[in-house]
Amino acid sequence: MITHIAVDIGGTRMRAASYTSDNLTPIKVNRIKTRKKNSTPLKRLESLITSVWPEEAEVAGIGIAVPGPVNSATGVIEKAPNIPELSGLPIASNMQAAFNVPAFLGNDANLAALGEWKFGAGRGHHHIVYLTISTGIGSGVIIDDQLLSGARGFASELGHTMLLPDGPLCSCGVRGHLEGLASGTAIAKWVAEQISKGVETSIAFDSSNQELIPGIVIAEAAQNGDILARQAFKRAGRYLGQAIADFLHIFNPTVLVLGGGVSQSYALFAETLYETIKTHVMAPEFLEDFTIALAELGDDVGLMGALALARESTGLSYP
Amino acid sequence: MITHIAVDIGGTRMRAASYTSDNLTPIKVNRIKTRKKNSTPLKRLESLITSVWPEEAEVAGIGIAVPGPVNSATGVIEKAPNIPELSGLPIASNMQAAFNVPAFLGNDANLAALGEWKFGAGRGHHHIVYLTISTGIGSGVIIDDQLLSGARGFASELGHTMLLPDGPLCSCGVRGHLEGLASGTAIAKWVAEQISKGVETSIAFDSSNQELIPGIVIAEAAQNGDILARQAFKRAGRYLGQAIADFLHIFNPTVLVLGGGVSQSYALFAETLYETIKTHVMAPEFLEDFTIALAELGDDVGLMGALALARESTGLSYP
Repeated sequence: MITHIAVDIGGTRMRAASYTSDNLTPIKVNRIKTRKKNSTPLKRLESLITSVWPEEAEVAGIGIAVPGPVNSATGVIEKAPNIPELSGLPIASNMQAAFNVPAFLGNDANLAALGEWKFGAGRGHHHIVYLTISTGIGSGVIIDDQLLSGARGFASELGHTMLLPDGPLCSCGVRGHLEGLASGTAIAKWVAEQISKGVETSIAFDSSNQELIPGIVIAEAAQNGDILARQAFKRAGRYLGQAIADFLHIFNPTVLVLGGGVSQSYALFAETLYETIKTHVMAPEFLEDFTIALAELGDDVGLMGALALARESTGLSYP
Repeated sequence: MITHIAVDIGGTRMRAASYTSDNLTPIKVNRIKTRKKNSTPLKRLESLITSVWPEEAEVAGIGIAVPGPVNSATGVIEKAPNIPELSGLPIASNMQAAFNVPAFLGNDANLAALGEWKFGAGRGHHHIVYLTISTGIGSGVIIDDQLLSGARGFASELGHTMLLPDGPLCSCGVRGHLEGLASGTAIAKWVAEQISKGVETSIAFDSSNQELIPGIVIAEAAQNGDILARQAFKRAGRYLGQAIADFLHIFNPTVLVLGGGVSQSYALFAETLYETIKTHVMAPEFLEDFTIALAELGDDVGLMGALALARESTGLSYP
């Protein structure tokens, strides 16, 4: 029996699971905190993988999703603000040496796109744009059955598309990017600004409090008819629509897969999104054979992406 | 001796040439007008190809560049505003039937990117963004040695990236696209607007005249120190820089190849362009191993692209 191990490394926890080649239900699954006193993330990763190692089965490969860009030439995670301890480390070759099994590393958003393509909402498509909208906006692109990586693995940063010169600051420090306008963080900031300006709302907010209003609070207010909260989602939908029109022109995909926490409020901005795309697209042909689909893999998308990477990299054809 | 035939179809003229497989100097070359009374463009194309057919040599394939999107599934040119007579026609299969030789069709800007990659400024690169800035802004993208086409062949329309909400109208009818801000047409329109507003300049312009100021006039004025003309190129350079920062985030290329008439004035906006890219890029890593290069193939880029398509499609490895 051939098996693969998938690992999803996050800023606060790491998850791992082992799978047979004909199934998406794990043989073993485990999760641990990314950091702990007297233990490095690399050592913890090693023991996590050991804990899900299948008994009496051959492991063909290990796929690892990391929250940062992976240099495709060196296999090194280049910048990981959430886990600086792993920055610059050749994680895959370390695991390969530790377990004597081929190991493969990928950026988590790119692998999420791979996962949704192989096992989720992108199944059967060959040209896919995947956006995950939560704290930030991550993305991955499949072009003609290939994951877009770019020369050094930095490509497909669609969240950093410039939409509004002199717009709000993005997490990267540049103004007017999609992420700074339509991420969960951007929505919460905009709502707080409007409340500070005196706009009426049912959302309780203390402007002396530096914390962001939780997305769930804004979503619930919107569902209950709060006008400001509804505007906040529509505003995000407009910016997303403008960016997606760009992505249609650039990639001519057949599906846009939307994931992340904000996508759970899709009904609140779907119409605005689609109308904006229609207004901004250069020709209606780009909308023929094009659909928008919600991501299907939920919290498992990182593991599923790492599994897809491990299977693909070891030459396994998919179920 | 194996040969290929390359054809570049434009709105006013068609060019064709035949080449041996080891050389870029044509065996025969010819050009004719695209239209003439009592003759259809398809018939004229056929006689043009006949006129460059090499004697005593086998033709392995015909590559044809057309000024419109080519449906990659059907091989049909979908929309060609410059040659509406060819819209919807399966040009390649027509030529294939007429000459009993495989024929291949491609969008001219995409094939220009292919030509610059194989024979010009993109040689040796694997990740290339090509922009041709003239009346409009055309583009082509090479990703990991593959030409980006998208699901139906409509992809890589980088000129239609939205940069300025409520900006000037683009040729496609949408506001704020790169093409509407930085093409030769956009530069000429902006200069005319400024003159109409009373801005001083050495450029002679009659605002009752509906014709655009020729690009060469603006370029020469700028070279002679005209402040308005210099501002016009810098303004275009700023918008190009903003868009190119997006393209770096999206594609992580190692080279941007700039072609078209406006690129001949590159010295007038190079510094502004590069400074804007630096300001708008999310991380300096995108600029490592990245260069901007001027296109090398000039007016022959269409033929060279069609030749590259013909050679590649018939499995010829390149010199």
